[in-house]
Amino acid sequence: MAIRLDFRDDDFETRFAAFLTTKREVSEDVNATVRAIIDDVRENGDRALAAYTRRFDGLDFDKVSMRVGADEIEAAYRQTPREVVAALELAAARIEKHHARQLPKDDLYEDDIGVGLGSRWTAIDAVGLYVPGGTASYPSSVLMNAVPAKVAGVARIVMVVPAKDGAINPAVLAAARIAGVDEIYRIGGAQAVAALAYGTGSIAPVAKITGPGNAFVAAAKRQVFGTVGIDMIAGPSEVLVIADGENDPDWLAADLLAQAEHDRGAQSILITDSPALADSVEIAVSRQLKTLERAETAEASWRDFGAIILVPRLTDAVPLANRIAAEHVEIATADAESFVPEIRNAGAIFVGRHTPEVIGDYVGGSNHVLPTARSARFSSGLSVLDYMKRTSILRLGPDQLRKLGPAAVTLAKAEGLGAHAHSVAVRLNPGE
Amino acid sequence: MAIRLDFRDDDFETRFAAFLTTKREVSEDVNATVRAIIDDVRENGDRALAAYTRRFDGLDFDKVSMRVGADEIEAAYRQTPREVVAALELAAARIEKHHARQLPKDDLYEDDIGVGLGSRWTAIDAVGLYVPGGTASYPSSVLMNAVPAKVAGVARIVMVVPAKDGAINPAVLAAARIAGVDEIYRIGGAQAVAALAYGTGSIAPVAKITGPGNAFVAAAKRQVFGTVGIDMIAGPSEVLVIADGENDPDWLAADLLAQAEHDRGAQSILITDSPALADSVEIAVSRQLKTLERAETAEASWRDFGAIILVPRLTDAVPLANRIAAEHVEIATADAESFVPEIRNAGAIFVGRHTPEVIGDYVGGSNHVLPTARSARFSSGLSVLDYMKRTSILRLGPDQLRKLGPAAVTLAKAEGLGAHAHSVAVRLNPGE
Repeated sequence: MAIRLDFRDDDFETRFAAFLTTKREVSEDVNATVRAIIDDVRENGDRALAAYTRRFDGLDFDKVSMRVGADEIEAAYRQTPREVVAALELAAARIEKHHARQLPKDDLYEDDIGVGLGSRWTAIDAVGLYVPGGTASYPSSVLMNAVPAKVAGVARIVMVVPAKDGAINPAVLAAARIAGVDEIYRIGGAQAVAALAYGTGSIAPVAKITGPGNAFVAAAKRQVFGTVGIDMIAGPSEVLVIADGENDPDWLAADLLAQAEHDRGAQSILITDSPALADSVEIAVSRQLKTLERAETAEASWRDFGAIILVPRLTDAVPLANRIAAEHVEIATADAESFVPEIRNAGAIFVGRHTPEVIGDYVGGSNHVLPTARSARFSSGLSVLDYMKRTSILRLGPDQLRKLGPAAVTLAKAEGLGAHAHSVAVRLNPGE
Repeated sequence: MAIRLDFRDDDFETRFAAFLTTKREVSEDVNATVRAIIDDVRENGDRALAAYTRRFDGLDFDKVSMRVGADEIEAAYRQTPREVVAALELAAARIEKHHARQLPKDDLYEDDIGVGLGSRWTAIDAVGLYVPGGTASYPSSVLMNAVPAKVAGVARIVMVVPAKDGAINPAVLAAARIAGVDEIYRIGGAQAVAALAYGTGSIAPVAKITGPGNAFVAAAKRQVFGTVGIDMIAGPSEVLVIADGENDPDWLAADLLAQAEHDRGAQSILITDSPALADSVEIAVSRQLKTLERAETAEASWRDFGAIILVPRLTDAVPLANRIAAEHVEIATADAESFVPEIRNAGAIFVGRHTPEVIGDYVGGSNHVLPTARSARFSSGLSVLDYMKRTSILRLGPDQLRKLGPAAVTLAKAEGLGAHAHSVAVRLNPGE
């Protein structure tokens, strides 16, 4: 049973504030282990990489090649069920189309005194994409990370995926092929992150690493940050459903459980003005849990972190939603559209009863890598911009320097930076 | 004396590669101290903040108010020399004009099957701006951080600045007034970062913290990252000057020293095809060092990290520049414009002999907060986007769900996520 909060209760603010700061993640401290692995790979390259892979994944690079061959990718693609390939291709096409609209335009112009100014965008040269092994090896995540990189124009996209005893989920390789990724290595963990960041004899280094991973991968990404760029460190997922009384409780229960089945730390929240709906959703959740494959995970998440919040009017949900700043917000109300401009803090908003969040996970076209753990207050989902960087361009001629130079000299002197002042002054007064 | 590298030497690649990885920063490990300070402020709020401020800044909040009063800001503005105020106002107006062009446009559209998709940008609600105390207290940095936040539409901008024994640089308060920042607190260090991230009785928390600081501030920003957003952790600054033989060596020497005077870890690099220019710049540097206020810092930086690289043809500078990925790149050649598209990895490019980098520090209009330490390979300078976040919007009706739903179900099942599949299937087949 999820917790229940009622906006009208005297202690609501206290309980809601406590609810907001509930910690949903136990992070193991693996920093020392990870530090040692990174240092080893940095120093000993392929030899260290092979040793860790033998130890952690039971894989011997004397017998299996580290790089996944083109024939293997092709075979995996053919081995993947036809309807899965078709669904991946539909998803990839929609993701590509949506993300192409995110491509930023350069802005190069001259201002009113003839100064040339510019913001120029270029793709990052090389990017590494981490794909987890085992059950968390999701082909949809391959698309969500690789397609925007392709759209950005990244020339080299490298994928790493741990292959316990050699096996890689064929659908993951099929997704890579569909996304146009062909440099794939059978490595994982902190050692793979280190290889991407520093390079080895076999793997040239990249400039940025994206993609989810376990505690070791997350710690390794944090440690190599600076040497390379990284994306956000993803936390456990969450959904907030804002619903009026006119919903089918089964639909909403299914959405809450879809979130809950991800992880015991996932969080599903329902805000409604209908006590009757609250009750019937709770019952539907219990009923659906009985037939769910991942019932144990979903039940733990719903029990420990799930919540139903009753509000007198649905508009009261808005300030709560903005404080929760959920990764996903579903609006299942008659006037769903009117809520959209009010919900400022959300990774993604799913509008109306026929837009379950799961559509966004796969085939909506928008990205499913979104800010978790209230970070939608200050950050955004993955986009084409994450695979590009902006360079400023400035161009002055003698006239412009004469106009702007004196102010720069004044400020440099006020800041006590004499060489700064001189660098402008020497051009203004050649005698100086 | 800076080091000299010659592209034609047999060991050039080895020496250049070593040069690229030279560490220019000694980072103290202050993590444990900072952790204790943050925990204390989080738990004890204003009381802890007052205690640390008394201890580190010699300031007693029983005698001086923590918040800087409106009258004080006004007095500082009037006390700042007229020409400095005028220069700050010119700078602020140019920064505002340039950054206004960075405001992203929302993109809300319907695709060919009637799915509503959107990327909507909103300002972060509240931002904290850290301003260092003492000699590193630069009014220009106040403008570079605060003006883009204003342009983004951030409703609440909070500034913190340590005030040893109560004193704040009047020009810093003048810059705050010009930028429209009026919530200013006399606090600094890790305790100020903690107060911004978690809030205290007197200070409401913010969602993101930007601005430079010392090792304690940097460590504190890293530690609160996740709870709030942060900007990059700035490293020591660098400039790369690409120059032909037709330059005034005094101009280039001044530019190299402007960078070097910032910090002993700053780096100034000259790449030229003219051995004669290389020699005369080196001589000019030595001569200018004699009259520089900050000669000791500049000399140490030039000696330890400065470099002159000789290339046979200036076009050979391009791949080197892209590997160096400098914060600032000056192009002082006859055909400067032709280099611009080739230099992919740079925080900012200054085109032509009359565009010293210092113009960009103050009055060019572009931002002077730029990626350091080779991070221009994967990141960008500060912009309006850093003070905003993007929310994805997705809207399907029954028709669109019928079209896309089956593929989502297929993928969810392929990924072993039964509740995901059910959340779509229950809407497609109400019996299910």
